Amino acid sequence: MSEHRETRVIGIDLGGTNVRTAVVNAQGEMLARDQGITPAKEGSDAIVKAILESVGRVLTQAHMDASDLGAVGLASAGLSNPETGILYTSPNLPTLKDVPLAGLIEKELGKKVFLMNDANAAAIGELYLGTARGARNFIYVTLSTGIGAGVVINDKIYAGSAGLASEPGHMVISDEGPVCYCGSKGCWEPLASGTALAKYARQCIQEGIKTSILDYVGGDAEKVTAEDVHKAAQAGDALAREVIARTAYYVGVGLANLINIFNPELIVIGGGLSNIGDMLLEPAYEEAKRRAFPQMSDVVRFARAELGEDSGILGAGIFVLRETKGLGRL
Amino acid sequence: MSEHRETRVIGIDLGGTNVRTAVVNAQGEMLARDQGITPAKEGSDAIVKAILESVGRVLTQAHMDASDLGAVGLASAGLSNPETGILYTSPNLPTLKDVPLAGLIEKELGKKVFLMNDANAAAIGELYLGTARGARNFIYVTLSTGIGAGVVINDKIYAGSAGLASEPGHMVISDEGPVCYCGSKGCWEPLASGTALAKYARQCIQEGIKTSILDYVGGDAEKVTAEDVHKAAQAGDALAREVIARTAYYVGVGLANLINIFNPELIVIGGGLSNIGDMLLEPAYEEAKRRAFPQMSDVVRFARAELGEDSGILGAGIFVLRETKGLGRL
Repeated sequence: MSEHRETRVIGIDLGGTNVRTAVVNAQGEMLARDQGITPAKEGSDAIVKAILESVGRVLTQAHMDASDLGAVGLASAGLSNPETGILYTSPNLPTLKDVPLAGLIEKELGKKVFLMNDANAAAIGELYLGTARGARNFIYVTLSTGIGAGVVINDKIYAGSAGLASEPGHMVISDEGPVCYCGSKGCWEPLASGTALAKYARQCIQEGIKTSILDYVGGDAEKVTAEDVHKAAQAGDALAREVIARTAYYVGVGLANLINIFNPELIVIGGGLSNIGDMLLEPAYEEAKRRAFPQMSDVVRFARAELGEDSGILGAGIFVLRETKGLGRL
Repeated sequence: MSEHRETRVIGIDLGGTNVRTAVVNAQGEMLARDQGITPAKEGSDAIVKAILESVGRVLTQAHMDASDLGAVGLASAGLSNPETGILYTSPNLPTLKDVPLAGLIEKELGKKVFLMNDANAAAIGELYLGTARGARNFIYVTLSTGIGAGVVINDKIYAGSAGLASEPGHMVISDEGPVCYCGSKGCWEPLASGTALAKYARQCIQEGIKTSILDYVGGDAEKVTAEDVHKAAQAGDALAREVIARTAYYVGVGLANLINIFNPELIVIGGGLSNIGDMLLEPAYEEAKRRAFPQMSDVVRFARAELGEDSGILGAGIFVLRETKGLGRL
């Protein structure tokens, strides 16, 4: 089935809930797309199997087989080494520890697999196809279950000396703050992520503060998510608004740090939590500007990510096209 | 006096106490050196005059005049724009606000003047002549009156989109912490600088804690400096040791952030406070390693800066030699 002369690659986004795959061509177009369930509580064998099944389905959709592929880009949450293809640790994939993920997929598909951090992939996606087109220096931040980031310097992902950068979700912004899964305390993530927001709402509810948030979860405080808090806030609930304001404050503190450290021209905000929109983001930007040097906050532009949940698969695909010089005109 | 065919430049280091100048040749050798007093409380005219006088003296020492110079590198503490040559603000030079410092010196000397941050200059100095030789990605941190940093990525200073990076001294590590001169709260600088250390010691003394620190300042708590605390700690004083341990903790928290954000291969520590040595730095490195991802802290090397108070003048000189392509083999 090698009638396709143009380069085609697969982008994979391995998340704690879903594994997404897409066939992407040299123009960055998505020719086929699939979504499967990540068996996050099972071991690496089951996870690799779920990835391969989704790859199989997306290839079928695109009337291709693996031999037609240029290469594969695999974006995953967590800390991974792009040189060795090893995923060290991922908060949402607790069974994966020091797993040679790229190698395992590579063996099955017979194609080179590039492992990368999912936020780095999303940053590349936004750079080529999203809101960061034309920017050369920017930071992509995903406010989600956790907080991820991709730092783009001169059109390239800044990956650091061992390919592990950048993890500002684990910069300390409140040194005596809550314990983080990474082992530190007061990191940005346990204060400003969607998980943090929902946790704080649940705490307030358990302390007896009256709120309509419970109406969205059938009265069960344990079930409260960031989305429920958002809905209650939109309906005018005071606690919900305070919870969002508190999260916005911490989002802003972290953004101020990124501004003073990187002096970026643009910060792109993505991730599920950012869907709360202005109610969260406007006060966050204000807090960032209050704290950062005015000379730096004056030159930074904030923008919402455009690619949504496709940012990872598209970014992983484009990353691979770029690495293998298969990238056409975008 | 144009018998010198080789390129020679001047490096200037403008600090809150001293203005230092040096003539540097293409091999990075210091041919002459001068040190004057910075009239920090007077206006920009007096400061420019002091710089020009030091330049005059160092040229005389080197048997040169300004026409023999390739160009001039001017390193200054504070926030400055290398493109426009404007110094926006500097905590130790409070009279200088939005001063076109490079232009003022340029007009007098008739030579191109490159303005840069002093920590960025010091990083370049350490890269070419100091402990960072051979490194391509590292962070220079100066623990001094304030905290400055120069981030080197692929042999180049990372200066950000407006030339203002990187200012991790003003990343928030304790969001409800002490007010910082920059307008934010709980920045690294007011918690981990030499000024912060001395201030905390003075507070403890004023609260009545018994200490031999006062023996080094004739009993006047107001006069206590970081050096006095260091001396008392060496003599076994309990408060002095606690003050240093507290500062080490905060130094470590900030270093952890730099590790998780930049995944550097090397962090070079300079500045007067670092002269306390292992008593400060060892617990700081331990705290950093406790907090940073082990995969990143395992690959980072910590080293003391080698160039001491000459790092700024040498770095400014080398920066200019590099910019003007006058750099020889180092």
